[in-house]
Amino acid sequence: MERAVIVIALFHLMNLILLFPSDFTIPWRKVLLTGRRQAHVLEIHRASAGDALVVGVENGKVGQGRITRLTRDELEMDVVLEVDPPAKVPVVLCVAMMRPIVFKRVLQTAVTMGVEAVHVFHSKQVEKSFWQSTALKVDEVREQIILGLEQAKDTVLPEVRIHKRFKPFVEDVLPDLLEGRQGVVADPSGGALKVTAKPKVLIIGPEGGFIPYELERFQSVGCEVIGLGPRILKVETAVSALLSRFS
Amino acid sequence: MERAVIVIALFHLMNLILLFPSDFTIPWRKVLLTGRRQAHVLEIHRASAGDALVVGVENGKVGQGRITRLTRDELEMDVVLEVDPPAKVPVVLCVAMMRPIVFKRVLQTAVTMGVEAVHVFHSKQVEKSFWQSTALKVDEVREQIILGLEQAKDTVLPEVRIHKRFKPFVEDVLPDLLEGRQGVVADPSGGALKVTAKPKVLIIGPEGGFIPYELERFQSVGCEVIGLGPRILKVETAVSALLSRFS
Repeated sequence: MERAVIVIALFHLMNLILLFPSDFTIPWRKVLLTGRRQAHVLEIHRASAGDALVVGVENGKVGQGRITRLTRDELEMDVVLEVDPPAKVPVVLCVAMMRPIVFKRVLQTAVTMGVEAVHVFHSKQVEKSFWQSTALKVDEVREQIILGLEQAKDTVLPEVRIHKRFKPFVEDVLPDLLEGRQGVVADPSGGALKVTAKPKVLIIGPEGGFIPYELERFQSVGCEVIGLGPRILKVETAVSALLSRFS
Repeated sequence: MERAVIVIALFHLMNLILLFPSDFTIPWRKVLLTGRRQAHVLEIHRASAGDALVVGVENGKVGQGRITRLTRDELEMDVVLEVDPPAKVPVVLCVAMMRPIVFKRVLQTAVTMGVEAVHVFHSKQVEKSFWQSTALKVDEVREQIILGLEQAKDTVLPEVRIHKRFKPFVEDVLPDLLEGRQGVVADPSGGALKVTAKPKVLIIGPEGGFIPYELERFQSVGCEVIGLGPRILKVETAVSALLSRFS
């Protein structure tokens, strides 16, 4: 486990160290960190006492942490929190469940790109076994969200919701999400999008695509089906391409 | 090795089977396949004699292959090549070298999204050890290109060039690439882009960013520096986001 922690740390930039209320020894002024974040600052940033790092507090402001003590086990910083985190982009991302390792990357990417919320749902061409994955556990999801926020220098945890059945998602959840938003389903069968300034609900299917019944259900609640051109993209590519184009 | 082949096959869609001149037993009409592609059709597509698959010939047309024989070791198809592959997007992608595993993904993604060429170059904040990677070998690069084409249903292999020194790349290679194209460097220091209809050269730095000297060199040959907003994206996310926005 300790090894896994270091591997994550090595391949992750941590442009911001996300702080939680429990990290503070003096509220909003002094923190004591151990574990992954402390190891990262020691091994990757190779920082030492006196250095300043970008920090942010969960769902709060961004600022600076000045290292007062850094040992093999502990990191102590004086913290000043000054500015608001970057605004979220006005997009709710709904994506069919995918291979767990891809799910982790997609979740992280969506959080990095600043979506307001992520909904993961079942669809006919999703392998049932994907739903057994530990990647869907609350702690694992939270870990990916945090990695995404650290990458983006953001602090605000988006909502992530899991819907293991298609119909209740489309009939009971999606209509609420679509309040005041334009619903857009990416599918090879679709045409070009009439882009509006409205916030969006972006819906991306499994690699095998949506079945006609599913597309009908999306349309019946007011979504438009758009194509992404003749090239078939991997889900992770489609997510960043769509978010870039429509946000 | 055989195991590795199957793993690639499992996690790869192969929306088109790319054929090479040497696969043909009767030119442009009949092919005999063994190895990765045959294994994929057998194990993943679970196809059988009579089934039709999307095929395309290297740098040529796309069409249909009808299976005439499929055994544990061999796949024989009657091929009809009818339509042109999707047009490339008018973008040359230049990207600083990155961790080899990321390089593979980025290369595949760029090919899937249809860039005309990929240039990989050195930059101050690129770890020198990355250049030792086997991922840069001709055969490995070709493998990623083929996977990207198969994903996109494309057949045309883009040029991929490797530049292990920054200055010769910017001074000797880049000016030629910029003939008739708008050069765009993505960097946090940049502003908004004045989008023109011109074909683009998109330049993306290492995760640590370009140093000021490098940005100056790019500007001295006519490139504009643009920002991608306050969020810092991973290289692979930046590539698909930029390609989506500017192509």
